[in-house]
Amino acid sequence: MQRTRIRALLSSPPAGADVTAAGWVRTRRDAKGGFSFIELNDGSCLANLQVVAGQDLPNYAGDVQRLHPGAAIVVEGPLVASPGKEQNVELRARTLRVLGFCDPLAYPLGKQRIGLDRLRELPHLRARTNTFGAMSRVRNRLAQAVHEFFQSRGFVLMHTPIIATSDCEGAGEMFQVTTLDLDNLPHLDRGGVDYTHDFFSRRTSLTVSGQIEGETYACALGDVYTFGPTFRAENSNTRRHLAEFWMVEPEMAFADLQDDAVVAEAMLKHLFGTVLRDCAEDLAFFEQRVAPGVVARLQRLADKPFAAMEYSEAVAQLQRADCAFEHAPVWGTDLKAEHERYLTEKVTGGEPLVVLNYPAEIKAFYMRLNDDGRTVAAMDILLPGVGEIVGGSQREERLEPLLAAMHARGLNPDDYAHYVDLRRFGSVPHAGFGMGFERLVQFCTGLSNIRDVIPYPRTPRGSE
Amino acid sequence: MQRTRIRALLSSPPAGADVTAAGWVRTRRDAKGGFSFIELNDGSCLANLQVVAGQDLPNYAGDVQRLHPGAAIVVEGPLVASPGKEQNVELRARTLRVLGFCDPLAYPLGKQRIGLDRLRELPHLRARTNTFGAMSRVRNRLAQAVHEFFQSRGFVLMHTPIIATSDCEGAGEMFQVTTLDLDNLPHLDRGGVDYTHDFFSRRTSLTVSGQIEGETYACALGDVYTFGPTFRAENSNTRRHLAEFWMVEPEMAFADLQDDAVVAEAMLKHLFGTVLRDCAEDLAFFEQRVAPGVVARLQRLADKPFAAMEYSEAVAQLQRADCAFEHAPVWGTDLKAEHERYLTEKVTGGEPLVVLNYPAEIKAFYMRLNDDGRTVAAMDILLPGVGEIVGGSQREERLEPLLAAMHARGLNPDDYAHYVDLRRFGSVPHAGFGMGFERLVQFCTGLSNIRDVIPYPRTPRGSE
Repeated sequence: MQRTRIRALLSSPPAGADVTAAGWVRTRRDAKGGFSFIELNDGSCLANLQVVAGQDLPNYAGDVQRLHPGAAIVVEGPLVASPGKEQNVELRARTLRVLGFCDPLAYPLGKQRIGLDRLRELPHLRARTNTFGAMSRVRNRLAQAVHEFFQSRGFVLMHTPIIATSDCEGAGEMFQVTTLDLDNLPHLDRGGVDYTHDFFSRRTSLTVSGQIEGETYACALGDVYTFGPTFRAENSNTRRHLAEFWMVEPEMAFADLQDDAVVAEAMLKHLFGTVLRDCAEDLAFFEQRVAPGVVARLQRLADKPFAAMEYSEAVAQLQRADCAFEHAPVWGTDLKAEHERYLTEKVTGGEPLVVLNYPAEIKAFYMRLNDDGRTVAAMDILLPGVGEIVGGSQREERLEPLLAAMHARGLNPDDYAHYVDLRRFGSVPHAGFGMGFERLVQFCTGLSNIRDVIPYPRTPRGSE
Repeated sequence: MQRTRIRALLSSPPAGADVTAAGWVRTRRDAKGGFSFIELNDGSCLANLQVVAGQDLPNYAGDVQRLHPGAAIVVEGPLVASPGKEQNVELRARTLRVLGFCDPLAYPLGKQRIGLDRLRELPHLRARTNTFGAMSRVRNRLAQAVHEFFQSRGFVLMHTPIIATSDCEGAGEMFQVTTLDLDNLPHLDRGGVDYTHDFFSRRTSLTVSGQIEGETYACALGDVYTFGPTFRAENSNTRRHLAEFWMVEPEMAFADLQDDAVVAEAMLKHLFGTVLRDCAEDLAFFEQRVAPGVVARLQRLADKPFAAMEYSEAVAQLQRADCAFEHAPVWGTDLKAEHERYLTEKVTGGEPLVVLNYPAEIKAFYMRLNDDGRTVAAMDILLPGVGEIVGGSQREERLEPLLAAMHARGLNPDDYAHYVDLRRFGSVPHAGFGMGFERLVQFCTGLSNIRDVIPYPRTPRGSE
């Protein structure tokens, strides 16, 4: 079927030409004089196309007057200047064919406004609403902008494995993957499950990060990135956590912490600038209906350099703050959400903040130990209203400090033989970071619940 | 660290300028007269940069003469025209700094050539070889070309869920995902595992396709596509199967089987054309070292229209063939690999073939029943040497035929309530297909084992 998308019809209307549009009816209004106005949406943009269907159509009474919200139609006719104030052009139906009717008594998305919580129970239909149509288009544009940023800088996309075979990292928060029959588990003589019968002959789980594998490819190809799903089996039902989420993880050889922070900031600015340029209509909707101020905030972040601060200085500022924190800020502990909020709201005044060089004891073994012997070359980027959007570090490329950091944490280097190998065979300084993609979409749309920025959210005790 | 990628130095050498390059030593050759030639690779391209390091360097004896394959160095100096025949330019080292030495006795990738089977045991190092460097760059370019194709046509990328909650599809070949403690499973009073204690309060598994969810978004946004990991717990150790692989799945509203085949062919041509244009150096390597003829085959496919044939006609041709098949071709059975081979090699003469309209009884419930009542609007695209690369169909958008197809297969429509809803609320003709991304990379590189076209292959009893 040859159809022209409504986005194209509205943005560059072919003067006077006959066109074919197809989509779903948002509303139908019958006017005096024997014709109807139909607001038609096809998902290509937020705006509807106004269709004018008159009683001269042979199926006016039989079809047009039976159209309700949700019905699917194909309309063919001339696109002409509209006398109405709401739109520039309208489609005068010469033919109108119904593809599928929609029973208004059964259809959950009627004319009345429906709350986001109720829409979460309708994941198969909610993309037909303005909010989820706009979110889907913004999410799509951001995803492509991620690729554009890294591709234009010569990074190689790498697909890291989803099924992870090392269970050395915090297995408590990981999903186990198995083909064993849980009603009939094979057991070892000494007790316990016999994983030699499992699909991979060992215990496996869903990945929590592609970093380790990313490092192996960065130490061969130079600059790589991943963009894939990651998983946390955390039992936390918050507006900021999903059990399944998408993560962007670049890894750069010949790079230090400073390079890392520079690339992360440039990436965020590129992403904000791209949606501001290419998703203006959808952002205006979020500005008006969801989060007033969201566009101005994006604009500010796209333009101004981010503030940066040492972790130690951040703690000192928090300790001096005239503010009753629930958790007292103490050097050597992680920043809590309330601290991040204070830093991005009060200290920077609503700007992002790059926090650098965290205490070694609260960070992972793979982060590079600084010369002070007590901090590591880690950095987080905090966004106002969202908190941590990027977390990264320079990796420990020196064999002995890496082994020492493993031993200090009770890790067995044999479990990380490949990782250690990289430090033995032509080791190079390298750094990388991770960005939670859904947090980014939240920030750009202003949608406060992370369940509303991914089509089918996976959360504890609810994956529909 | 400011460095220029070797790809840039070789493709557009800055005349006479001082440059900094960093990478890994491929070979070092000491010449008479007190200087050494170093072949340096940084993964940005297949070609090495020739570095000339002389004994005037203060660390010539201490460092340069201790460099072995795999060592990492940074070199700074002028890039000059090379007197050698093998390269146009060379880098005269003014300074050479060793980032990481590499012990030739311990390093598994020495000078001698290593087989692909041995390299599979070294997934963390194999990207440093020419074959895997080239494969990684081709794979990266193909992935980006997938996005370019669909984005340029207005498709919206959609991230479909990885953890699947419906266990109605062939659960036997699915990986189960669980947070239950397998050493201490909760049981129902009536026996069996009590999944109300599992993370999602139900049994969950890894997705085998994003199609069902893709359809829900196509029926709201028009044209969507997914590009994500999918899983099969098939215990088949072949050169063509992975337990974890990436799949591209577009889904188009207002489209029929013919539209589906047209888009699939255009996509493949775009992908072939893009790698031919942008990956010429890497393809030349595969042509020379891996699969002679691979470039000419890609060129032919990028240029010529694909052949198309009804399934019934394909079976008739196979039945008339002067060829002893292991499985006799019979109408109503699926085409075997030997049949696909015959069709693409003998019938089309080495060209791809689009096979259309398969018997309903061998296809899934969701494919649209044709007017003949015995075939469905399905299509496969077969490539010479690879077999099926694309499988798609027009979906059954009519409620009654869909319910009938479910009943005929013993499926309970209640298990597909959302899917059925789409046929009740403004149903539209729609179609889509899936392309196995690793099969595509195999076809473009000529690498015969699918384990060699993904960084960390997941196969039965071996996920390293």
